[in-house]
Amino acid sequence: MGMKRQPSGEDKLIERFFKPLASHPGALSLSDDAACLTPPAGHDLVLTADMIVADVHFFADDPADTIGKKALRVNLSDLAAKGAEPIGALLAISFPGAVEEKWIEAFSRGLGEDCAAFNCPLLGGDTTKTPGPLSISITAMGKVPSGKMVKRAGAKPGDLVVVSGTIGDGALGLRVVKGDTALAQLTYEQLDYLKTRYRVPEPRMALATLLRDHANAAMDISDGLVGDLAKLAHVSGASARIETSKLPLSNAAYDALEYAAGYLRDILTGGDDYEVLAAIPAERYPAFAEAAGKAGVPVAAIGSFGPGEGVTVLGPDNEELAFGQGSYSHF
Amino acid sequence: MGMKRQPSGEDKLIERFFKPLASHPGALSLSDDAACLTPPAGHDLVLTADMIVADVHFFADDPADTIGKKALRVNLSDLAAKGAEPIGALLAISFPGAVEEKWIEAFSRGLGEDCAAFNCPLLGGDTTKTPGPLSISITAMGKVPSGKMVKRAGAKPGDLVVVSGTIGDGALGLRVVKGDTALAQLTYEQLDYLKTRYRVPEPRMALATLLRDHANAAMDISDGLVGDLAKLAHVSGASARIETSKLPLSNAAYDALEYAAGYLRDILTGGDDYEVLAAIPAERYPAFAEAAGKAGVPVAAIGSFGPGEGVTVLGPDNEELAFGQGSYSHF
Repeated sequence: MGMKRQPSGEDKLIERFFKPLASHPGALSLSDDAACLTPPAGHDLVLTADMIVADVHFFADDPADTIGKKALRVNLSDLAAKGAEPIGALLAISFPGAVEEKWIEAFSRGLGEDCAAFNCPLLGGDTTKTPGPLSISITAMGKVPSGKMVKRAGAKPGDLVVVSGTIGDGALGLRVVKGDTALAQLTYEQLDYLKTRYRVPEPRMALATLLRDHANAAMDISDGLVGDLAKLAHVSGASARIETSKLPLSNAAYDALEYAAGYLRDILTGGDDYEVLAAIPAERYPAFAEAAGKAGVPVAAIGSFGPGEGVTVLGPDNEELAFGQGSYSHF
Repeated sequence: MGMKRQPSGEDKLIERFFKPLASHPGALSLSDDAACLTPPAGHDLVLTADMIVADVHFFADDPADTIGKKALRVNLSDLAAKGAEPIGALLAISFPGAVEEKWIEAFSRGLGEDCAAFNCPLLGGDTTKTPGPLSISITAMGKVPSGKMVKRAGAKPGDLVVVSGTIGDGALGLRVVKGDTALAQLTYEQLDYLKTRYRVPEPRMALATLLRDHANAAMDISDGLVGDLAKLAHVSGASARIETSKLPLSNAAYDALEYAAGYLRDILTGGDDYEVLAAIPAERYPAFAEAAGKAGVPVAAIGSFGPGEGVTVLGPDNEELAFGQGSYSHF
């Protein structure tokens, strides 16, 4: 008689929803205990891990496909800022007891669309239950030509402070999702744009190779521009000075500031931008900006690094703005 | 005036408790957004991720140092079974609101002791808060000579079913931690031994090279011997037959069976063994067993693989035992 192998609920879940995302041969179709990769010749590996928790980093009732996308994209954003191209990702996820198959279907569909779009297949992972909120931990691996990872430390006095895209949309989007009535004056399209920027950030993969060629230092902006700039300047042993008049703003953020100037603080410190912050030598900036524009990613120089330490932010009337912490911290 | 960089609570926590564990130069002292590794020449990379959640995989009131050790060891156990030697690990951890510094100190001390003992430095990670239970997700990376990862699929009819160490101690240890009164007849030392086996499993790193040399297939036993054997047999396209009389048991497990024969089911299906399960060709087994013994890890042949499918378990009186699921599944 004996026992035949009956697939468990966990097996079925992996087979149905996650195996289709495991297109890399090293993932062994998720049927082994580990992934096996031949490292790319002439390259270094870049590894990053981010955990996102329901009602801390996203809302449990956000559309499930956007949660899958955000979980991957916050990691891809780190790879891009380090000059790395994705190899693959591992997913560890703990589901609350009441999770529905429909939810997992939408989550894995969103994640899978992005695994394909960003050429970052699922390599392995772990699924488990939790009595707490949904928690998603993704470890992403990328590659850079040997010795070419763009570090956070490296900004030099004279380098320009450069950012990609527009700043503050994620923080304003969070306010919209939370139902901030002061933003109700924005158009429906603007509100929708801001929500999408919060829920589905745009990792700037197109900048990876350009950062390797032009940047002295870079990181992605996840915890707020001013605080993240302070981190980059600090580990580089430099100061930084930026002007809010030079901040690249979306049309929606611009209008929001018209209605309430106080949103400037959210824009500068709110986080969830997932744009690139880079130190680019002034003489290289024109070439960098031109190449970035051609790659479809607008960039803007918003200030410069200098000797000493600390970050100075000049406000709309050239007054120095004061900040406390400057960036989000969980502790 | 401007803003000087004030370390956040998160920065201080990482600096104080986790930076000492990041001895690998590629970890960049945890001061960057990602780790950067030069892959070892002539080797493949082996990647595994496991998430453990309080009151699902361990108890929130387990000693904090043992939680740190278990989180790493369950991943190291996967690497060992794949024939891989550790390179390093990434830690994503979400702390409940009320976590105390003393707890984090003990957790990071336990984790750090094992990072050092198993030569698996911390490469990076993420710390966050959660409204739910403590959740720890570790991704471990190892290396094997190119093409030498020991797969789960590969067992051939005629291979012996081989396990390391003793089976069932983790499952019995879980019963002890839960206060199973039927086990109170065991000695204090036996109870302590079983609890330790549950809380601090022993990853069989010493077997990694031997498995590469001798095994056709291997995995670690985390979800119960019978179920995990069924998985290995299934992906190998083989059947398996084991005899419980050949099971290597600890003195404590042996005595527990004397008091209550019903514990045999726990021993066979309970999980948390973190021993190696391997398919070893019969002619290689003597050399494997001798080398394993010299390396300090006893191994035992408990049956063999055959053609067809399914797992047969012969009980103490040579009767076939019947099982349902055979292994733990979260879903």
